[in-house]
Amino acid sequence: MAKKIQRIGVLTSGGDAPGMNAAIRAVVRACAYYHTDCVGFYRGFQGVIEGDYEELNARSVRNIISRGGTILKSARSREFLTKEGRQKAADTIKKAEIDALVLIGGDGTFRGGKIFNEEHNISVIGVPGTIDNDIFGTNYTIGYDTALNTVVEAIDKIRDTASSHNRLFFVEVMGRDAGFIALNSGIGAGAEEILIPEENLGLERLLFSLERSRRSGKTSSIVVVSEGDKIGKNVFQLAEYVTQNLPDYDARVTVLGHIQRGGSPSCFDRVLASRLCVRAVELLLDGQTNMMVGFINNKVESCSLEDALKSKPDINKDLLRISDILST
Amino acid sequence: MAKKIQRIGVLTSGGDAPGMNAAIRAVVRACAYYHTDCVGFYRGFQGVIEGDYEELNARSVRNIISRGGTILKSARSREFLTKEGRQKAADTIKKAEIDALVLIGGDGTFRGGKIFNEEHNISVIGVPGTIDNDIFGTNYTIGYDTALNTVVEAIDKIRDTASSHNRLFFVEVMGRDAGFIALNSGIGAGAEEILIPEENLGLERLLFSLERSRRSGKTSSIVVVSEGDKIGKNVFQLAEYVTQNLPDYDARVTVLGHIQRGGSPSCFDRVLASRLCVRAVELLLDGQTNMMVGFINNKVESCSLEDALKSKPDINKDLLRISDILST
Amino acid sequence: MAKKIQRIGVLTSGGDAPGMNAAIRAVVRACAYYHTDCVGFYRGFQGVIEGDYEELNARSVRNIISRGGTILKSARSREFLTKEGRQKAADTIKKAEIDALVLIGGDGTFRGGKIFNEEHNISVIGVPGTIDNDIFGTNYTIGYDTALNTVVEAIDKIRDTASSHNRLFFVEVMGRDAGFIALNSGIGAGAEEILIPEENLGLERLLFSLERSRRSGKTSSIVVVSEGDKIGKNVFQLAEYVTQNLPDYDARVTVLGHIQRGGSPSCFDRVLASRLCVRAVELLLDGQTNMMVGFINNKVESCSLEDALKSKPDINKDLLRISDILST
Amino acid sequence: MAKKIQRIGVLTSGGDAPGMNAAIRAVVRACAYYHTDCVGFYRGFQGVIEGDYEELNARSVRNIISRGGTILKSARSREFLTKEGRQKAADTIKKAEIDALVLIGGDGTFRGGKIFNEEHNISVIGVPGTIDNDIFGTNYTIGYDTALNTVVEAIDKIRDTASSHNRLFFVEVMGRDAGFIALNSGIGAGAEEILIPEENLGLERLLFSLERSRRSGKTSSIVVVSEGDKIGKNVFQLAEYVTQNLPDYDARVTVLGHIQRGGSPSCFDRVLASRLCVRAVELLLDGQTNMMVGFINNKVESCSLEDALKSKPDINKDLLRISDILST
Repeated sequence: MAKKIQRIGVLTSGGDAPGMNAAIRAVVRACAYYHTDCVGFYRGFQGVIEGDYEELNARSVRNIISRGGTILKSARSREFLTKEGRQKAADTIKKAEIDALVLIGGDGTFRGGKIFNEEHNISVIGVPGTIDNDIFGTNYTIGYDTALNTVVEAIDKIRDTASSHNRLFFVEVMGRDAGFIALNSGIGAGAEEILIPEENLGLERLLFSLERSRRSGKTSSIVVVSEGDKIGKNVFQLAEYVTQNLPDYDARVTVLGHIQRGGSPSCFDRVLASRLCVRAVELLLDGQTNMMVGFINNKVESCSLEDALKSKPDINKDLLRISDILST
Repeated sequence: MAKKIQRIGVLTSGGDAPGMNAAIRAVVRACAYYHTDCVGFYRGFQGVIEGDYEELNARSVRNIISRGGTILKSARSREFLTKEGRQKAADTIKKAEIDALVLIGGDGTFRGGKIFNEEHNISVIGVPGTIDNDIFGTNYTIGYDTALNTVVEAIDKIRDTASSHNRLFFVEVMGRDAGFIALNSGIGAGAEEILIPEENLGLERLLFSLERSRRSGKTSSIVVVSEGDKIGKNVFQLAEYVTQNLPDYDARVTVLGHIQRGGSPSCFDRVLASRLCVRAVELLLDGQTNMMVGFINNKVESCSLEDALKSKPDINKDLLRISDILST
Repeated sequence: MAKKIQRIGVLTSGGDAPGMNAAIRAVVRACAYYHTDCVGFYRGFQGVIEGDYEELNARSVRNIISRGGTILKSARSREFLTKEGRQKAADTIKKAEIDALVLIGGDGTFRGGKIFNEEHNISVIGVPGTIDNDIFGTNYTIGYDTALNTVVEAIDKIRDTASSHNRLFFVEVMGRDAGFIALNSGIGAGAEEILIPEENLGLERLLFSLERSRRSGKTSSIVVVSEGDKIGKNVFQLAEYVTQNLPDYDARVTVLGHIQRGGSPSCFDRVLASRLCVRAVELLLDGQTNMMVGFINNKVESCSLEDALKSKPDINKDLLRISDILST
Repeated sequence: MAKKIQRIGVLTSGGDAPGMNAAIRAVVRACAYYHTDCVGFYRGFQGVIEGDYEELNARSVRNIISRGGTILKSARSREFLTKEGRQKAADTIKKAEIDALVLIGGDGTFRGGKIFNEEHNISVIGVPGTIDNDIFGTNYTIGYDTALNTVVEAIDKIRDTASSHNRLFFVEVMGRDAGFIALNSGIGAGAEEILIPEENLGLERLLFSLERSRRSGKTSSIVVVSEGDKIGKNVFQLAEYVTQNLPDYDARVTVLGHIQRGGSPSCFDRVLASRLCVRAVELLLDGQTNMMVGFINNKVESCSLEDALKSKPDINKDLLRISDILST
């Protein structure tokens, strides 16, 4: 019979994402509501290894819902990848009398949680928190919506300059393995072209399309490029290639970089984080483990961590079509 | 046999919403992509009645995706509610050789479109554009996500003052018949209480809950109140009632008002508007009429206008529960 | 001979303003830099009376520069208006071995500081922190620039709706005694008319001007009204009066309210707060008292509290002229 | 005797800056107010050379006050640097019967205007519009305040990530020849170090200071670097150098790039643009030429273009001191 859960630990791990604080707050307050103790570990699994944690109550998380980053800090712990590291972590868990963990992060985090559960039989529930939206088992990850708004606002600003100077801008956005940010922010920003890792349009097509749009009277253009775009050139090489082949164009590059991870979370991300984390706590109290909570078809759902890790969500091909139609 | 659609009209009607320009742009560009003419009517159905329209092409809608409001302006036409008004509108449509209409607005707009179709056999497709999110047949209306962000940012600011002065703030948000904005923005802003038209908590409970939260050491509180809240008092009376009964509280009122309708649309609303309107044009070209496009379970779908008008979406009761848990 | 200053207290008092946290941070860090102790009193003079304070060091103020509100909270202490209240405050000061105070607030705060100094010989320096910009002895008060941006962004949103619906909007902004916010934000937002306490244009002129602008083809208008406007009607009565006399207009009212006090401070306010507060600490360490620091002609200056309290800055008449010219 | 000015041309030239549209609007409306014709040239002097212009009236500039970029577009015309180019421009001016020009831009623009006036006796008034704030004869250039806010908001976001991951961030901001943006935004963002072209702190000092701040318990740091910083390394080399010497640090680089030029202008920039441009038109109508308008000591002033071009404003050394004190 499952042990009664009386004390839950929470941590944020991997790249930070807006809404992680809203998620922490929801875990803490759901624990308070259900008269369950809650402790927060600092710097992800590294804090578990080092025993670096703090008791959290409703007051500890006051007014953090609107803040970017994570009050628990985040890290990618190399030590936790080793058996010894995980043993130390298990020792902390035991000593601190913690019954279960809520893990807020991406698939690296969940993989760590799954193996930790297998080796040391500690209940874990994963909550998808990453700007990349590349987690199977949820339509939206916490932080993704905010990152899209940040990117779109930045491109709106670049558009001011592009239009004023009749320029071509290459804007690199985050997403090493997945083009979700590029594709959605590109449509949202009205980009003329969008280059993503999932689809290799080829340089020819890019040149062709830019030439056509110039001939049609367009004097400025925005090309959104995902970090991990498949064309095999980085964004600076890409810009150079294009200007060599289309000398009419005055091309510039902007790499948006880390501003995409920060900022006050959008309402969507705050509500998503709140709903997922209440459910995460409830699942633990209900004796569940090794699950991930997600938002599927407008409802909070859960799946096994195994399923969540088995595959990657597909890019929505229809969005590529929409982008094509609208950049006419 | 259905007539081939060669010329499509588009209009925005009812209360304006952020993303309406993104929607207009998508209609115009989808038409251009499918080699179909497109005209824009000004001030909703009133412009149809008065023959106030303009040819639109891809260039007409350049750089409008990021702008609030609607370049076609919006109105609630009283004349269109009369048979004579609709006859005049039909005359315009005939004279301008328009084969079909895309109607961006709320249920008033759709009701008008439906009767117009019945009387004059003009193909119409509705696109849900309203900040209220009160349309059956779509999980999200265009403008709703942006309005939520506007409200949450405003309450974040009010929270600064509330915390600094240990005050109780009543913040009235839009939503005469539906509490969607209040409920979601209330959770997003971490409101202590949320009052919505769908649920009458009663004044007793409000007093009780505020007293409890003060005793627990909370020195400031935010109560989000929907315009149409059922307690039967307006927000100023509510504040007065509370201060009379809980003299400890220093209470203030802010009515957010029309800032909720404006502003640059969020990425979500821009992508939603783009997807729905491409589909709207494609449905018309496919010979469909009397339909509404919507976003259901993360997919673009369509239903009959009749179904869309038959009922109202329910408030998500689970969100009330979440709010309760998190305002601990 | 003046006692050496070894321990400085800081407080925020009166209405809160964005940039107060940047000011507190600068006081604390300047103290650290000059090896001087620093304590923060909560809720303005009330915290001095009650002995409610905390030691502050460089770490206590980490990452607060970007936050609205004030971590020390603010209040208007009625007790401090009495001799007894001030005696209690002096007792705290003595007991806590505090040598001097930095007072961040408006003229009520400075008046309190001046009398406190006279009665109990405690060194005080005032720092102008209020959104109203109504302090003599500085061209800018901390918080004013941020409030202007908040108002202008809000009116930009209202303009979206006003244009879309051809409406007339009356927007009430803060400034009970001074029209600084109304005048500058009105010009910044491109308002058609600006009503301020310093100037009574009269209702006739307003009607005349609105009529003229309608005739010239303007279909929407924004009138910015200062809380304390001299026409002697509140903004709702004003709107009613106008619609009765100009029935063509569809008029609406928005009272911006407390969102004007909150929000992350602008760069200007953060730098201003930083510069003024470093100077405040240096003045104290230099043996000065009863002074206010200010920003005059692009330089940090200081004047006696007496001079600061003697008069009120005049509204810039040239700005009224500019508004007139630009609303053509 | 000076010819009566009956027709004024306006153009924006050089790098675009937020507030240029507010400036254009003010020129156009001031002309309308004084019953003077106004035409706008596209793409700076290039549009004058090519005769690419449009009549502008009060309606043409409706609702542009809030928009970034410039509706007249901007460019750096190489042709105008030649005598032949300027002759063509003078021909346009004559043919279009334009009596005077308002030139919105930086010192390149003013230099062009001055020589154009000398060769062809056309009245010109310069208005300082550039984000760099590097113009002698004004305390603030149009666009500078907005750029500072954009930078500070971006660094606030990066701070979220830096704090969450205990990282060191190097953030490169604009300012090839002048450190104004770096210095003010660095103070506003609470940067630990600021590197500007005007001052070579040396790499030693940077290492020393970072080491000290790490030892004092600071786990994350922001270093703001001006494009044209004197250390003689670009920001990537700088980051590499630091990580080689301080291997404890996990360092990242963000180059903010062109987002700094765009965006809706701040209230300050809108009011500044409005005031300067009304004055520019009034000076022309008053028979003046070869002047630049500026904002000095809180007043609109003017100086000769010659004086404006003679020197560069000095960096405020006191701000370096403030930065030093506050990054304790």
